Amino acid sequence: MSYTLAEIGEHFGLKVEGDPALTIEGLCGLTDDLPGRLSFIGSPKLLEQAARSRIDAFITKPGMVVEGKVNLYSDDPEYAIAQIAEWFRPAPMLQDERIHPGAVIGNHADLGEAVRIGPGVILGRHVRVGDHTEILAGTVIMDHVVIGENCLIHPNVTIREHCSIGDRVILQPGVVIGGDGYGYLLRDGEHKKIPQIGGVIIDNDVEIGANATVDRGRFLSTRVGRGTKIDNFVHVAHNVQVGEHCLLVSHVAIAGSTKLGNHVTLAGQVGLVHHIDIADGVTVLGQSMVTKSINEKGVWAGSPAQPADLWRRSVALAYKQARKR
Amino acid sequence: MSYTLAEIGEHFGLKVEGDPALTIEGLCGLTDDLPGRLSFIGSPKLLEQAARSRIDAFITKPGMVVEGKVNLYSDDPEYAIAQIAEWFRPAPMLQDERIHPGAVIGNHADLGEAVRIGPGVILGRHVRVGDHTEILAGTVIMDHVVIGENCLIHPNVTIREHCSIGDRVILQPGVVIGGDGYGYLLRDGEHKKIPQIGGVIIDNDVEIGANATVDRGRFLSTRVGRGTKIDNFVHVAHNVQVGEHCLLVSHVAIAGSTKLGNHVTLAGQVGLVHHIDIADGVTVLGQSMVTKSINEKGVWAGSPAQPADLWRRSVALAYKQARKR
Amino acid sequence: MSYTLAEIGEHFGLKVEGDPALTIEGLCGLTDDLPGRLSFIGSPKLLEQAARSRIDAFITKPGMVVEGKVNLYSDDPEYAIAQIAEWFRPAPMLQDERIHPGAVIGNHADLGEAVRIGPGVILGRHVRVGDHTEILAGTVIMDHVVIGENCLIHPNVTIREHCSIGDRVILQPGVVIGGDGYGYLLRDGEHKKIPQIGGVIIDNDVEIGANATVDRGRFLSTRVGRGTKIDNFVHVAHNVQVGEHCLLVSHVAIAGSTKLGNHVTLAGQVGLVHHIDIADGVTVLGQSMVTKSINEKGVWAGSPAQPADLWRRSVALAYKQARKR
Repeated sequence: MSYTLAEIGEHFGLKVEGDPALTIEGLCGLTDDLPGRLSFIGSPKLLEQAARSRIDAFITKPGMVVEGKVNLYSDDPEYAIAQIAEWFRPAPMLQDERIHPGAVIGNHADLGEAVRIGPGVILGRHVRVGDHTEILAGTVIMDHVVIGENCLIHPNVTIREHCSIGDRVILQPGVVIGGDGYGYLLRDGEHKKIPQIGGVIIDNDVEIGANATVDRGRFLSTRVGRGTKIDNFVHVAHNVQVGEHCLLVSHVAIAGSTKLGNHVTLAGQVGLVHHIDIADGVTVLGQSMVTKSINEKGVWAGSPAQPADLWRRSVALAYKQARKR
Repeated sequence: MSYTLAEIGEHFGLKVEGDPALTIEGLCGLTDDLPGRLSFIGSPKLLEQAARSRIDAFITKPGMVVEGKVNLYSDDPEYAIAQIAEWFRPAPMLQDERIHPGAVIGNHADLGEAVRIGPGVILGRHVRVGDHTEILAGTVIMDHVVIGENCLIHPNVTIREHCSIGDRVILQPGVVIGGDGYGYLLRDGEHKKIPQIGGVIIDNDVEIGANATVDRGRFLSTRVGRGTKIDNFVHVAHNVQVGEHCLLVSHVAIAGSTKLGNHVTLAGQVGLVHHIDIADGVTVLGQSMVTKSINEKGVWAGSPAQPADLWRRSVALAYKQARKR
Repeated sequence: MSYTLAEIGEHFGLKVEGDPALTIEGLCGLTDDLPGRLSFIGSPKLLEQAARSRIDAFITKPGMVVEGKVNLYSDDPEYAIAQIAEWFRPAPMLQDERIHPGAVIGNHADLGEAVRIGPGVILGRHVRVGDHTEILAGTVIMDHVVIGENCLIHPNVTIREHCSIGDRVILQPGVVIGGDGYGYLLRDGEHKKIPQIGGVIIDNDVEIGANATVDRGRFLSTRVGRGTKIDNFVHVAHNVQVGEHCLLVSHVAIAGSTKLGNHVTLAGQVGLVHHIDIADGVTVLGQSMVTKSINEKGVWAGSPAQPADLWRRSVALAYKQARKR
């Protein structure tokens, strides 16, 4: 794929200063420093480094000019280049046929317009798939699953029975939706299984990273709210309610029935115990363990978690005392 | 699915007080508060909240009456509702045929009575599957694997060659049994692979959560004892011996050759170093790292782990000192 | 499989002392103590235990004789037995045909000599596979992927489009290569996806454990260097550059754009924040969180990480103070 800067400027509404016929073959970051590419800068501090680089063209802000390069202007250069990146994104689909003959479609399937289903995909009975959704190779969708419009379900995903996926949801490879929650009762020295008869509801615009899992609820549904983005290896246990526009970074583990508000950020490897509530706008720093509800917006850290400032002081003090020894 | 309380009472041996013709369409927890449902309470403290709820019927203990509701009596209400939940559990199977024509069955397979094999399942050579076991879509079972009776193997599971699975074992989607253990020898600055020629033995009544892994042994077998329940993303390394009726919660990582006794509980994100022994009945709290053998029953916590009381005091002290600054 | 010690001694160049006609049926560790097996010892301290065991034969060092057993001599007994283990490793392949008729091979595939492709494997368009590489059942390889020679790709692996795998690479079951990196821009209260248009480059002699993931880069490629060994559940985020001969143990999480030198060892459950550099030869102990670049070789520990000695003193001090209470 290659495009002229004129094409890019016109389509994305960016004014081009310099040779509009220049062709770029890809995008890159400033430090990648590759010829034939378009990059971006958001701060005047980077102007000199950009000018010295081998990169041919930059998206920059009005009033910030990279000397000797083609400049495209945007009020939001990073967002602009993210939109342009869509043009360079390789198509994920594996085959030419809309429904690959090697897919297995169960009875009573209800497939929308322009749905694409890859080879080796297994759809159970009574599955509904919305318009323009793509389900890639090797994915298994069990009975009575509902998937919305414009979703992209990558290979080797499993969605178990009676789960529901919204519109514009992206599931990376290996994701498991609706595995049984981890529920047992200790009776006579043995752990008896509690059947997990609830489902999972994934709202619109959610993305879930490779090999992450969202377990089904015990009675009702585990829920992930609109616009929430979940990274690889995140564990969302049964009955958890995740709010809207949350960020759950890699290896986060949320135990059963815990509730997250909106715009909650859990950094990598954070753990939350069960049956607690986390308020809107809370951020928890990496490797922390939250053992109690957090009732107002703020930054928390530590294991067990405390307000981040207190945690920072306690860590600094511990290392300071140790240094004296 | 819907049932009358009379049907439920009769089948599960629960005395019904109130209208036995009342139909329920599902179960729920007390706080879910939904009409048309059956719930349970185990403590008299909840009687008032139950009476105020919109829930139609409760399983409660003899002598505890939820006013204005249909009451069903059990000495163990939570266990009773777990048993009733089986009636509401949707069937997991994907197809009508016992052996789906889209499955690949290797030579010398030995399939028991009423075995069900889903579409896209691949069975290697010399695989044995016990009576009434179900293997769902997209799962791969390699050569010389033995699977017992009444197992439920969910989609997209992998069981590598020469591993052995007991009776009534449940593997959630994406589980990997028998991946190579992580074994290398540093020679001339390079890590040379140590072939992992042992297998994995999973005993009866074990359940393993979505995307969890149990690695094969270096010479002999990694073992998971009877009745042990393993949550999502748990890592059981090569040569590990897990006892009976253990609970290994999400993201637990057990390094090579470590041995767990019976009834050991490892909470979420706990790590155990290699070549240590953990006694029967030990509990380790979340995010702890156990670096030495633990020789008697007790609760441990911290990274590195100490008896939980000591850990609690050390954490409280650290935060107290920091608060003074 | 069984072999005489004469066969083993001759093939691997080990002098045999005792009955060379003795047949062994497998290998084991010293503490496994099984008859009919060959084991090894590397230290004279173990000579007595070895002599008392039921094991029939030992690889030992010249000058170290296990009394009453057949002895085979090597300057490197552990490495010798690792090489012999190859003879006892069960073949992983599932079928007799080179290309299973149940595999789906996309257009413009370029398959080398003696490539083996299992049932249920899906290859996209323009995929290249080098000589003698084996791709096992249920694995999905998307468009424009390049795989080198003598690789072993286990079942249910996913390699997304435009990723590149070197020679002699081993991917355990469930591995995901090239899932989208976790990149979003917060605009108007919503997390907008940044398309991840880079790929992943896995160099020669890399091994990746079950269900581990390596995400594709934002603009360019995420890289894993030659000879690096990655354990189960390791997360390598977008744009990360892992050097040569590193060890990344189970549940390690490396955030975006972080760079590791060569011979870096990250123990289990270690986390690294984004955009930091780790020098050659650094070791980080289990459950540590590295929040800053580490510029020279050494051992680090703690959350946040410090030089390991300092961390050890701070932990010892904290527990000591708590004991006084």
